Formats: sequence, structure tokens, C-alpha cells
Amino acid sequence: MAFAGGGRLAAAVSRSGGLGLIGGGYGDPAWLEAQFRAAHGHAVGVGFITWSLRKSPSLLTDVLVHKPAAVMLSFGDPRPFAAEVRAAGARLICQCQDMEHVMDAVDVGADAVVAQGAEAGGHGKLRGAISFIPEAADYIRATAPDTLLLAAGGFADGRGLAAALMLGADGVLMGTRLWASSEALVHPRHHAAIIETDGDGTIRTRVADIARQLPWPRGFTARIRRNAFTDRWHGREEELESKVSAEAPRYRTAFAEGDPENTGVWFGEAAGLIRSIEPAEAIVERITAEALACLKRYS
Amino acid sequence: MAFAGGGRLAAAVSRSGGLGLIGGGYGDPAWLEAQFRAAHGHAVGVGFITWSLRKSPSLLTDVLVHKPAAVMLSFGDPRPFAAEVRAAGARLICQCQDMEHVMDAVDVGADAVVAQGAEAGGHGKLRGAISFIPEAADYIRATAPDTLLLAAGGFADGRGLAAALMLGADGVLMGTRLWASSEALVHPRHHAAIIETDGDGTIRTRVADIARQLPWPRGFTARIRRNAFTDRWHGREEELESKVSAEAPRYRTAFAEGDPENTGVWFGEAAGLIRSIEPAEAIVERITAEALACLKRYS
Repeated sequence: MAFAGGGRLAAAVSRSGGLGLIGGGYGDPAWLEAQFRAAHGHAVGVGFITWSLRKSPSLLTDVLVHKPAAVMLSFGDPRPFAAEVRAAGARLICQCQDMEHVMDAVDVGADAVVAQGAEAGGHGKLRGAISFIPEAADYIRATAPDTLLLAAGGFADGRGLAAALMLGADGVLMGTRLWASSEALVHPRHHAAIIETDGDGTIRTRVADIARQLPWPRGFTARIRRNAFTDRWHGREEELESKVSAEAPRYRTAFAEGDPENTGVWFGEAAGLIRSIEPAEAIVERITAEALACLKRYS
Repeated sequence: MAFAGGGRLAAAVSRSGGLGLIGGGYGDPAWLEAQFRAAHGHAVGVGFITWSLRKSPSLLTDVLVHKPAAVMLSFGDPRPFAAEVRAAGARLICQCQDMEHVMDAVDVGADAVVAQGAEAGGHGKLRGAISFIPEAADYIRATAPDTLLLAAGGFADGRGLAAALMLGADGVLMGTRLWASSEALVHPRHHAAIIETDGDGTIRTRVADIARQLPWPRGFTARIRRNAFTDRWHGREEELESKVSAEAPRYRTAFAEGDPENTGVWFGEAAGLIRSIEPAEAIVERITAEALACLKRYS
């Protein structure tokens, strides 16, 4: 949710009973300041891309001044940051893509572990949520039973929340569903694209990171909409690398213009469950009510 | 479950309240005859790999003599076979890997649709189960509400069965969990390998099909154990193709010997949930009881 999840969205999620996170992403001090202001003092958290944060660790020190309720670290070793997060009184959430990450998260004493499946929009790895979540639950129960487990990747409605609880999670982390909210910092043409796309219409690929010249560690790919950009470059990564001086500005211009075809459009397989852009509070409240109805159906 | 799911396993599943399927796979008339005999008259079904069945359609005619309760068609257009299945009084199950397949299955009037996620062992595509199942459920409810929906790919315990029901499925289809049963036609060293492997230890790849010289259609890959064979060849598919006259017999010999490192070992991400090889009846009964306990926890 880097760039898309701002303070207004995070505050709306927290107001409706969830915990909203500001998508700190690669970290931009001015943007982060503005987003904490936009959260208007609501209890929100903030997420960072861990390997990127290691290059500018002062970003963490800066946001902790705002007393976030939680800091979520994704995609990299959380150990260098855990003590500072805890000393500031924030909860530490570690987003994990495989069992090795879960073991690291338990080792560092995370307050909450997110088991993120490959269905997720944006960056991730290849484990599917359906067996990763119960496997993570078994490990956490055996090693750190007080740690919360949140399920992520493909969760967008009350059926998914109820399923996550069955699988042994304590709740869900939603990206794509909140990306498709009125408060998300997403271009209206990208919002229109998710409504038109079903769950088959995304792809996990390196091409957006190559075009953006971001040095993602090996093994991580990003799920984005399948479009003219991915059709052109997926499978031709070396050629894209060789032409990146021309392609990078093209990508960024198309992104800024909300072009749904010639840039990365950042959502996951849950697209197939999303039929309208709505206020975040309406989304969270409906999902909670739907989940309760699902759970009661079999009681 | 080609080769692994024989008549004894299918009968055990049917005896415990499920519907056991003989894994007809690519089709071998003598093997199929023997497996129907081994089912001892229990109501069982049979599955085929559809693109392969088109080359030898008489295989279907031959098995229908045994009055299977159901025929499951996976990986290819079911239309050429639907009328013959129905005329024999068998139910038609279509296993689907994306929404396009689900639409085909509804179009052909399938009695049951299996939505199979990428977590599955053996062949499949890339959709994750967690959002594919509710998306398929929405489509089926809107177009063919009497059709059963079964969830597959990563389901191996009662938590998964309960989650599948929450997601809108009517039940689950289990491969990997029954591959790891006493009745499965699996080498003991391959059974030992699944117990040692966690859910991170598999890979979706083409290398087993290249080594076996099987002309799988584009887009399908097989999830197998990550081992010396996949480490050596995954990413070097063209080289394997060029050396297949030497590698094919090596693969087959290693498979026959139960070598867990130098051949395909056919299980999915649910490996991380499997801690022992047990009789199929014990597995099915425990999963049912576990699912009921999960559902009651929130009632």
C-alpha cells in the first residue's frame, strides 16, 4: 500500500474498528508527515519496506515521534528495528511470506505476524494463503502462543475473514480491498480498472520494479494488473533492463496519468471479489457483518 | 493423483463418507481395470487428464463399464466427453484452475466444479485458492446455483475444510493429504520425504514434464518437492530438453526406486500440515471432526 495508503484511509479504518496503517513504503519524510497529519490523531500504524528502511533508518525515528500504534515491517530482516519500535511503545507487526520469515518474526518477538499469501497485490512471494496460514498458526502456537496471527493475500470480504478465523488466524490484513476505497490515494482510472478486472487478470512479475529501478531482493515479485505493460515486458526482463533509461520515465508518466495499460496497476487476485469503490468504513463494517453471518450459518 | 490414487484408496475414502476417485491420469487400461477391481464394488469415481484423454477416448468408454459414481475431468475442454459421462449415469466433475475454466464447466453442465488453487500438488495454474473459491462461488450462484463447488489446493485438515465452507464451497477435494495415506500407491521413501518437508519446500515447475516427455499444454505447471532434481533443472528447461534422451530414463529409474532427490516427488504446499502417513479412513474422519470443532468455536 506504499503511496496508496495515506492517513485519511488509515484513520477511516481505525474509526471503523480496525487498525489502519499508513503505507510508508520506501519512505518519504514529507509525505509521511503529511499522512500523519491527515490521520487527525486517530490511532494508526505505519508500514515500511524493511530492506529499503535499512538504507534510511532515520525514517523510523522520525515517524515514531507521531506515536504510531504499530509499525509493520515487510520484506527483510526486522531485527535491526525491533528495539526502537518497542522503546517507542509501538506494537511490532512482521509481515511474512514464508515459514522462514515466520520463524524470524517469532524470534524477534513480534506482537503480530502477518502470513501473506501469493494472491496479494504488490510485493510478495509464492506461498498460497490457504495452507500457509494454518502452518504459521501451528508454529506460533508451539513457539509464541501470545503472538497474534493475521492472514493476508486475497482477503476482501466477510467470507475471507471467516475463513481466516477457521484457518487459525486472529484476523486479516487487507490491501487490495482498501486500495479500492474512496480514501485510497489511487487514480480514478486505476480504480476503474480494478472493477473491470477479474481475479485471473493479475500477474506476479519483476517488470514494474525494473521499470522503477528499485533494487528488490531476489525472490520477491509484485502482483499487478495484467495489461499492455506486462504483456510487453514479462519474460523479457533483460531487454527491459537494457532499455530502462527510456522506459522508466514512460512508466512514471503513465502512472501519474492513471493510464491503466502502460504502468503498474497495483492490486491482487481479490480484484475478482470487488465490484465497487466505497468508503473504507462501509467496507470494514460490511465485511465484519458478512463474516458474522458466515460463521452463524454453520452454528 | 495419477499413479498414486488407486482403487484401494478410493474405496477407503468412499467408505468413510467421502467420494474416492481413482487417479486415471494419462490412462492405462490394464491399470484402470485392476484399480476398479481393487475398489471391490464400492461407489468410487475416476479422474482423467482431459487433453490426454482426447488422444485415447476409448479409455473413458472402457471405465464407464464399471459404473463409476463420477468422472472428473481436469486440464482441458470437458465438452467432448460430457454427453458420454452423463449417458452412463455418472456425475461429471470438472476441475478448474481459473475463471475461464469455471465458465467452461458451467457451460457444459458440470454436476460439480472443483476450484483448484496453485497450492495444489501436481498440475495446476497460478490462482490462489483463497480468492478463487469465493469468486467461483459467486459465478456459480449467479449462473448454475445447483452445481456443487469443491475447493482444492492446500486443503489437508479440518481447518481447511471449515475455511472452504466459509468461502462458499460445498466441500473439498484433497490430493496431497490422501497421497500421504497408507493406501496411496506411493513409495515409502517418497512418503518419508513429505513428512520431512514443510510448505515452503515445493516448487511449481515444468521440469518433471520435460523429463517425462509429456506434452503438457502451455500455462500448466506441476508442483513437486524442491529437491536436487528441481535445483538442477528449474530455470534451465531448454538444456533439459536437449538432454532428455539421457535424463528421461534417469528420472524414471529414480522414481521407481523412490529416490526423493532425483525425480519428481508429487505433493503440494499442504506438506507443511502433514506429520504422519495414516490410513485414509482415519484421515477423513479426523478432518470431519476437526472441521466441526472449528465451526462450533465461533457459534
